[in-house]
Amino acid sequence: MTANPTQNIYDDDAFFAGYSRLPRSVQGLDGAPEWPALRALLPDLRDLRVVDLGCGYGWFCRFAREQGAAEVLGLDVSEKMLARAREMTSDPAIQYQRADLESVALPDEIFDLAYSSLALHYLVHLDRLVANVSRALSPGGRFVFSAEHPLFTAPSEPGWIETAGRKIWPLDRYLDEGPRVTDWLAPGVVKQHRTIGTYLNLLIRCGFRIDHVEEWGPTAAQIAAHPQWAVERDRPPFLLVAATRV
Amino acid sequence: MTANPTQNIYDDDAFFAGYSRLPRSVQGLDGAPEWPALRALLPDLRDLRVVDLGCGYGWFCRFAREQGAAEVLGLDVSEKMLARAREMTSDPAIQYQRADLESVALPDEIFDLAYSSLALHYLVHLDRLVANVSRALSPGGRFVFSAEHPLFTAPSEPGWIETAGRKIWPLDRYLDEGPRVTDWLAPGVVKQHRTIGTYLNLLIRCGFRIDHVEEWGPTAAQIAAHPQWAVERDRPPFLLVAATRV
Repeated sequence: MTANPTQNIYDDDAFFAGYSRLPRSVQGLDGAPEWPALRALLPDLRDLRVVDLGCGYGWFCRFAREQGAAEVLGLDVSEKMLARAREMTSDPAIQYQRADLESVALPDEIFDLAYSSLALHYLVHLDRLVANVSRALSPGGRFVFSAEHPLFTAPSEPGWIETAGRKIWPLDRYLDEGPRVTDWLAPGVVKQHRTIGTYLNLLIRCGFRIDHVEEWGPTAAQIAAHPQWAVERDRPPFLLVAATRV
Repeated sequence: MTANPTQNIYDDDAFFAGYSRLPRSVQGLDGAPEWPALRALLPDLRDLRVVDLGCGYGWFCRFAREQGAAEVLGLDVSEKMLARAREMTSDPAIQYQRADLESVALPDEIFDLAYSSLALHYLVHLDRLVANVSRALSPGGRFVFSAEHPLFTAPSEPGWIETAGRKIWPLDRYLDEGPRVTDWLAPGVVKQHRTIGTYLNLLIRCGFRIDHVEEWGPTAAQIAAHPQWAVERDRPPFLLVAATRV
C-alpha cells in the first residue's frame, strides 16, 4: 500500500495478466454473461453524452458510439487499461482519462448517461462518487451499473461448500459492511462489501429514482451452454441497477 | 388443504397456540425487534386513512389511531386473529374485516397509508395485491411493509450450520423463486420465496417510487440485551420497504 489509499490492482502485473485473459477482456461485452441483462437496462443511446466509470479496455465506450452516442468519456484508474483502450479505439468522440473514482470531480450536468460495470464495489467513498454522478447528470439522466452482488462479497470465506450432497454458499457477515480481502487473480484484492439496501438508499438520497433492480443469474439458455454456471443461481454473482436522476 | 388455495395457518390450532405465545403477540409492537426500524419508515399518521394488510391482533391498527390516524381498516384471513383483535379494541374508527389478501378487492383511492407486517411472503398472488394496493392509495399515499428477508426464505434447509468454528447460513436456491415449506410453529407452513429485486420491480411496475429499502438486523443495543441475536446480522431476517404511490 502507498500513501494513496486508492487500490489500483489493475496496474499490478500479475493481476493485469490474469485479467487480460478473462473472456470479458478478450471477447469484450459478449464475453460477459450479464451483458444482455445490463444492456436491456440502458436507454436509447442516440445523441447521449456518456461517461463510463471504470472503462477498462473501453469496450462499452465503443459500443455506446456504435449505438449513436454523441460523445463518450471513459475513466479508469489504471494506465495499463487506458493504454490498451486507446490502442483499440480510433474515434475522436471517445476520450479516455485517467481518474480515481474515489475522488474524481465531474462538472455539473454534462452527461445524459453514467455507466459502470463491476467497478463500484472497489470504492471506499462510493457516497462521494454517487453524489458527484448525480450532479454530473442532467435532470432525467440515467445511471446504469453492475457491481458484485453483496451475497458474493459478504462471506468471511467466499467459496462453495459441499454438505449433505448439496453445494451451499457459506453466508455470514451480510450486514457487516466494509472491506473484504480476497485472492482473485492476485493476492490481497480489497473489495468493499455493502448491502443492496445501502446501494439503493444511497442512490435515493442523492436524488435518483430507482427504475430497476436485478439480482443477476445465468439464464436457462446460458446454463444449457455452460452447465457449470448453474450454481450461480444459488447465489447471484452480480447486482444490476438502473436509476434516473430526478 | 382445501379447495381454497389460500393458506390459513393462523386458524390452525397448534400454529395459533404457538403464535399467541410469541413476544410480538404478547407484547405487541414492542415485542417485535424490527418495529423501531419499521416505525421510522412511517409518515406522520395524523388524519390518515390506513389499511393494515394482515393485521393479526390489531396492534398496529390501535397504534395508528393513537398516533392520530382518522380511520383504520385491519384485514386478516384468520377469524381467530380477528376475534382476538376485536376483544382488544374499543374504537369505532377501527374496523376489522376478514379478507384473503390473495384476492381482496379494495376500492380505488380510499387510503393514504397501506401497512403490512410479515404477511406478504405468504402470498402466491403478490402481484395482484400490490396492483390493488396501488389503486387503493391516493396519489402520494405510502406503502410501508416488512416481509421475511429473501435470504431467510431461500435455502433448501434454512438453519445455521457450524463449520470451521463459524456459524454459517447455508444459502442456496436464491434465484429459484416459489414455495418453500418449513415447520415454523406447525408442520408444512408454505412461504413464497422472492428476491429483493422482484419485490422492488413489482412495486415500481405498479406505480410506486421506492423511498427506502432496509435489510434489517438487530442493533448493537439489541445485541447487548440479547446476545443470541448477534447471528442475525450474518443473515438479515427481515426486509423493510417504504414506497410512495406516484
